[in-house]
Amino acid sequence: MANALDFYFEFSSPYGYFAATQVEDLAHEAGLAINWHPILLGPIFKVSGSAPLTEIPVKGAYALRDFARTAHLFDIPFSQPDQFPIGTVAAARAAIWARQHHPDRLPTLIKALYKGYFADGRNIGDADTVLDIAAGQGLDRQKAAAGIADEDVKNRLKEEVAQAMERGVFGSPFIIIDGEPFWGFDRFPHIRRWLQARQAA
Amino acid sequence: MANALDFYFEFSSPYGYFAATQVEDLAHEAGLAINWHPILLGPIFKVSGSAPLTEIPVKGAYALRDFARTAHLFDIPFSQPDQFPIGTVAAARAAIWARQHHPDRLPTLIKALYKGYFADGRNIGDADTVLDIAAGQGLDRQKAAAGIADEDVKNRLKEEVAQAMERGVFGSPFIIIDGEPFWGFDRFPHIRRWLQARQAA
Repeated sequence: MANALDFYFEFSSPYGYFAATQVEDLAHEAGLAINWHPILLGPIFKVSGSAPLTEIPVKGAYALRDFARTAHLFDIPFSQPDQFPIGTVAAARAAIWARQHHPDRLPTLIKALYKGYFADGRNIGDADTVLDIAAGQGLDRQKAAAGIADEDVKNRLKEEVAQAMERGVFGSPFIIIDGEPFWGFDRFPHIRRWLQARQAA
Repeated sequence: MANALDFYFEFSSPYGYFAATQVEDLAHEAGLAINWHPILLGPIFKVSGSAPLTEIPVKGAYALRDFARTAHLFDIPFSQPDQFPIGTVAAARAAIWARQHHPDRLPTLIKALYKGYFADGRNIGDADTVLDIAAGQGLDRQKAAAGIADEDVKNRLKEEVAQAMERGVFGSPFIIIDGEPFWGFDRFPHIRRWLQARQAA
């Protein structure tokens, strides 16, 4: 059995944010490490013919309501960003860079970026805001700036997205454990039941 | 506060089936009655530009897996129907007819139709199968046959679908309590949290 779960997330995804606040508890309960995979849904939606939730007719208004309600019901700080969705290339690259060079700070950086965007009204579509948040987490701002401009980091993000698609990832959050795929923050209870059933087997 | 919840469901929806097996417990816990609303997603998807889950690229394979896994994790008998999705006009009309003429038998009829299709391999897209199942629930087969051919029943189903769309229903299952909309079997835990928070307020 795997000793880690794969956590795929897009920084512009509210359910990805909600999941990021709780995935460590989930992994801890199950004795699993977390492989953090920042991805971009833009190129994935192009292939799957999907679109950001709030842009889908009829569903859009419900989605906005469900974001806020879910946050409230699970006690997660949340304020619907004025700019939504946003491009998250800089944020995703910063996470890729941190994963490579400061893995110990990766989870806090990811959570700080998400919270900045979804709770504190900071537009992480802007690279400077991303770097400010990284610096706020004790990372070197200049090195982070060089990191998100680095060709190797850019390529690693592209590979991350390509690999996600190969593994059938089509949304955020997306968790894979031992090849078993779970899509959505609302699958956390399913993951817990599934892990228990597996343990009992 | 409302003393009933509105439960919208399409007979070809696996998550509608799962919800139908559990909505009575949910309502009972909250001291609510259930208004059962059979609807057809076909005309709703036309407006919202949506499609049956299994026909959506990439998501389709995941959806099939999630149907079976969800059933397993929640201990609900399930076997993916060979014919899926199906037209459910006859089943929905039978439910509309029963709601009007045999309201005491409505929940068992709905659950029997769903179980017939999603657990017992019976194609409820076929009107004869619908009538067989109705008869199996103690309803008069001939009267049920006349019911699903009745103009008034047909019109009531059309109105049901039109009203559902007016209320923002775009999928199945869809539950509305005091104007608060919840889409999906996976929102049952949210409904429970929401009801508790409301009671505490």
